[in-house]
Amino acid sequence: MAVVVRNIPRAEPSVIDRLAACGVATVHEASGRRGLMASGIRPIQQGRRIAGSAITISAPPGDNWMLHVAIEQVKAGDILVLAPTSPCEDGYFGDLLATSAAARGCRGLIIEAGVRDTADLRAMDFPVWSKAVFAQGTVKETLGSVNVSIVCGGTIVNAGDVIVADDDGVCVIPSADAAQVADRAEARVALEESKRARLASGELGLDIYDMRARLAQKGLKYV
Amino acid sequence: MAVVVRNIPRAEPSVIDRLAACGVATVHEASGRRGLMASGIRPIQQGRRIAGSAITISAPPGDNWMLHVAIEQVKAGDILVLAPTSPCEDGYFGDLLATSAAARGCRGLIIEAGVRDTADLRAMDFPVWSKAVFAQGTVKETLGSVNVSIVCGGTIVNAGDVIVADDDGVCVIPSADAAQVADRAEARVALEESKRARLASGELGLDIYDMRARLAQKGLKYV
Amino acid sequence: MAVVVRNIPRAEPSVIDRLAACGVATVHEASGRRGLMASGIRPIQQGRRIAGSAITISAPPGDNWMLHVAIEQVKAGDILVLAPTSPCEDGYFGDLLATSAAARGCRGLIIEAGVRDTADLRAMDFPVWSKAVFAQGTVKETLGSVNVSIVCGGTIVNAGDVIVADDDGVCVIPSADAAQVADRAEARVALEESKRARLASGELGLDIYDMRARLAQKGLKYV
Amino acid sequence: MAVVVRNIPRAEPSVIDRLAACGVATVHEASGRRGLMASGIRPIQQGRRIAGSAITISAPPGDNWMLHVAIEQVKAGDILVLAPTSPCEDGYFGDLLATSAAARGCRGLIIEAGVRDTADLRAMDFPVWSKAVFAQGTVKETLGSVNVSIVCGGTIVNAGDVIVADDDGVCVIPSADAAQVADRAEARVALEESKRARLASGELGLDIYDMRARLAQKGLKYV
Amino acid sequence: MAVVVRNIPRAEPSVIDRLAACGVATVHEASGRRGLMASGIRPIQQGRRIAGSAITISAPPGDNWMLHVAIEQVKAGDILVLAPTSPCEDGYFGDLLATSAAARGCRGLIIEAGVRDTADLRAMDFPVWSKAVFAQGTVKETLGSVNVSIVCGGTIVNAGDVIVADDDGVCVIPSADAAQVADRAEARVALEESKRARLASGELGLDIYDMRARLAQKGLKYV
Amino acid sequence: MAVVVRNIPRAEPSVIDRLAACGVATVHEASGRRGLMASGIRPIQQGRRIAGSAITISAPPGDNWMLHVAIEQVKAGDILVLAPTSPCEDGYFGDLLATSAAARGCRGLIIEAGVRDTADLRAMDFPVWSKAVFAQGTVKETLGSVNVSIVCGGTIVNAGDVIVADDDGVCVIPSADAAQVADRAEARVALEESKRARLASGELGLDIYDMRARLAQKGLKYV
Repeated sequence: MAVVVRNIPRAEPSVIDRLAACGVATVHEASGRRGLMASGIRPIQQGRRIAGSAITISAPPGDNWMLHVAIEQVKAGDILVLAPTSPCEDGYFGDLLATSAAARGCRGLIIEAGVRDTADLRAMDFPVWSKAVFAQGTVKETLGSVNVSIVCGGTIVNAGDVIVADDDGVCVIPSADAAQVADRAEARVALEESKRARLASGELGLDIYDMRARLAQKGLKYV
Repeated sequence: MAVVVRNIPRAEPSVIDRLAACGVATVHEASGRRGLMASGIRPIQQGRRIAGSAITISAPPGDNWMLHVAIEQVKAGDILVLAPTSPCEDGYFGDLLATSAAARGCRGLIIEAGVRDTADLRAMDFPVWSKAVFAQGTVKETLGSVNVSIVCGGTIVNAGDVIVADDDGVCVIPSADAAQVADRAEARVALEESKRARLASGELGLDIYDMRARLAQKGLKYV
Repeated sequence: MAVVVRNIPRAEPSVIDRLAACGVATVHEASGRRGLMASGIRPIQQGRRIAGSAITISAPPGDNWMLHVAIEQVKAGDILVLAPTSPCEDGYFGDLLATSAAARGCRGLIIEAGVRDTADLRAMDFPVWSKAVFAQGTVKETLGSVNVSIVCGGTIVNAGDVIVADDDGVCVIPSADAAQVADRAEARVALEESKRARLASGELGLDIYDMRARLAQKGLKYV
Repeated sequence: MAVVVRNIPRAEPSVIDRLAACGVATVHEASGRRGLMASGIRPIQQGRRIAGSAITISAPPGDNWMLHVAIEQVKAGDILVLAPTSPCEDGYFGDLLATSAAARGCRGLIIEAGVRDTADLRAMDFPVWSKAVFAQGTVKETLGSVNVSIVCGGTIVNAGDVIVADDDGVCVIPSADAAQVADRAEARVALEESKRARLASGELGLDIYDMRARLAQKGLKYV
Repeated sequence: MAVVVRNIPRAEPSVIDRLAACGVATVHEASGRRGLMASGIRPIQQGRRIAGSAITISAPPGDNWMLHVAIEQVKAGDILVLAPTSPCEDGYFGDLLATSAAARGCRGLIIEAGVRDTADLRAMDFPVWSKAVFAQGTVKETLGSVNVSIVCGGTIVNAGDVIVADDDGVCVIPSADAAQVADRAEARVALEESKRARLASGELGLDIYDMRARLAQKGLKYV
Repeated sequence: MAVVVRNIPRAEPSVIDRLAACGVATVHEASGRRGLMASGIRPIQQGRRIAGSAITISAPPGDNWMLHVAIEQVKAGDILVLAPTSPCEDGYFGDLLATSAAARGCRGLIIEAGVRDTADLRAMDFPVWSKAVFAQGTVKETLGSVNVSIVCGGTIVNAGDVIVADDDGVCVIPSADAAQVADRAEARVALEESKRARLASGELGLDIYDMRARLAQKGLKYV
């Protein structure tokens, strides 16, 4: 039951970077509104936007042993994603683990639990999205697994999925879909740019999107 | 049932600006401790203080169509206030709608639901108070109403009510009461200023407010 | 029942400052993982780290009278710690009380309830950890007690306990244990420093902490 | 500010009883999906269905004085509806107040706060819908108001509104609309009865409501 | 994107009934502690224990159209499992849909949203596990999918998975694993029976499970 | 750090039984409104009222090993009280442990975590008050302590404190105060009995408690 999967699929680095540039809200739309983590997974910093390949961790509550195991599996550009096997907000991760992860090229951590040393993490510029900030320590007594499928923030995460995270939250893209989603996301960005200019000039969405007839047909009354 | 009310009462712009200057905590006291939204309606930015007239929106869960309708009703100095008809944290509002609203002179958004593109909203300096930050998109399928009475954050908001919002939360003042509340709020500010100086010098509230006798009479014991 | 205890034990100022320098996560480990407040007690500011002796306040819901009483008991270096007798998020504390407390040398407030005037509190550099930000005012009608034992954030706080608070939360150390905990905390900091260098160089926790044999013995499989 | 309104409008007793017979879900549909309290207002008993005219109470947190004032205003068939002025789960109401209210003909209590003596309340068959069950007592120190408009469970309640409550929650109908809503609710009940028979026989909603064409047009694919 | 999968794998009916007999806690242990829904998915009744094959539904917030589509796919012994695409507690399901589902042989509903007509559902003996009880109605405007993989209660549910539900919650077993899990669960039941007799006679778990040496070795002190 | 205290003070059995007879709400009032657990600790059954001496357990998250240790310390009439060292809702306790505890004369369990096998626990008539019902299992890897002071439900519990629990929640009385609190509680019951009769006859609390003059003096207006 307790396994570490060593070989995982990863999307192309250039595709991952294109997804990061588009941001969570756009990528989520471009992927058909799938793979968004619940709103309770919040950044501990502001203004960071990252993407990378998921190293997934299934860990017991209050036990961070598997994080050490997982860090060995990290390649440059990866993101650690941890879900406890039952709800927990203990501080699984702090500045020492962040130092270790960063040394391996890890781009950040997504965790449905707690983290600590948050001032240090911000100072190190190691970005984290977590369910809680909590100084409560953990033990190293019970095994879990690395690079198995997990559910984090209500969303399925498979090892190697592309994680995109920014101030709006965290989105998960299957590695096989990443290129297509990046194409669509960039198309959306381009389209939105043209609309932004029209909206900024005072033109109304009602007119740009041609909504008036359908509103009237549905029965909207102006009084 | 689905209506847009076009003419709404608004308080005097100068009164609205005076309320903004006093801030939520003082205005709330000055209005008899009424009209405060629940603490779950939080700013996505820090350090902004705004006031304006409410354009109210009652919208279905997960459907932001009425925001487009509402923006047409915005006049310079107004604030959008949206309550879903059942609890929802979807991202009804992002940078495109903010661009459109700002182009009409809208001063901000209060929403008992979610918003997205929050980094952009901060960069645009478009202030928002919301229940959630969530990239989950919405549809445009079901009508709602604009400028009807709603309950947002546990508080009644009528179209044209003065909204005051800052880091402490959001307060709602009936437009007809706005001038009187502004007078009282400014009086409180003046009064507090004098007390602040005495407290800063080390004088105790126990003495300034003459509390010792009443504390003793109620039975407080020093041991 | 309503009492104010005037003489309380306090730890040595130099010990208190050493604890502040170590921070909550380290102090909590050094104290045997005891005395941590629940994660719902959050700072209203970022990047502040304080320590001081607890002036404890047990107050009725929605009634901040005892804060005025407590401030008279504050000596330079103390921290106010308030727990309501039933759950409450009203704004017990704002800029006037902060002005008064700061004039007495108070280093901050920990409160399992709400505060208001938070922009002012940040501007004054008066640090607060609270359960809520809420502009709802309080009354002054019912007595409570000062410097009795309370439970705040799920943790026992006795008058004079050392409070350590930073971005990770709030930890409580009995005054009699403070020196020993400070010794252990500083030892941990030193130890972590050496490990940080090794981890930063890319060495793995698996090797530094010699975990591989025990992982294999517990049955971890690499596939 | 602290007032007791003695004369309030009430709907016809026969209309109120017709609404009770239809139940919350049907009445809520019949009233255009308005006036439903939030799902956090839960019954302390199972299987009770009541309706009555609202005696509204706005009370300070942790202070149940106004309940005594309100009970004097109760006429046979009324329902007490209490909202605290800030969030509170204290036990405002127990078996003594229930005895007093029942003696005046009160049909039940709706409260966005706590109650206690719940085993006794069930034994007395006095129905309650509340936010919490909590034995924490209250004081009698600060005034509130009776029969003013309040927001309870996120919904506006005016004195004399018809309250309908059952296992599904609590719905509020303006007294002036009560007869029309009762007509519509009974029509829904009749209509549902005919549909229930068809559905029970195995006929599908897809066919009864003629949904197949619209589903196909929207793009639903069977694979 | 909006699809209905018509052919799904199902476990053997006899295996499903054996799992039902073992109950959630035992089945969850027997499956390696996987597949348990979060504790927020609660029964609306007490004392029911069911198992069946999952008909999964992914539905928009506040829109129950797909339930009608899903009921056509139900075969005798199936259980409906619905997850909204963003958090929602609207009442998707009531007595009419239950009548229709029961007529098709459906054994119950698991829903990460709300239900209504709960008194009727109990009277009909149609069991439901839900996130909320809420009379708020839904619309039929936006498509979703049936028999695709969903995440419900934080757990992956594939069409045809065996659902086991009782007063302890809801557990999900892949259909291919069902027979093996049933074997293991029954073995656990047998084993527990023998231990129950020893424990009932006053023998201690410390002795039955031979824990004393390991406790001492870990350092437990009796004082 | 991991200790089991074997000798603890206990209140007189007759006093404990008198407290049980008075119930939580009355005992809480009689003890000066102290020692009430938070409202989130809820019974899994209805209509049970118990009292007993606390065997306290401090346990790691997701680890129920110490329950086995604690059961050996149970004497007839005791109640197990468990608080995890960080928030957890795992199912620490089920029918096997209940069988063992009941065989030792244990009267019930209070736990700020989860339990499972709840149908069995009700069938066995073993009463439980818990934070959650959750089938998630626990491990036996990390030590905790038995009969040390803990904080459970926000309240301090010392070994041997009298626990009173019923449908209203859980109250904790120091063993040394138990007799005095029982006297006061019984006096309250007697006093309430006389008031209940007057209230049942229709007499108002306003008159029985002589409130009218004080209400008028505080400024209550009848309109």
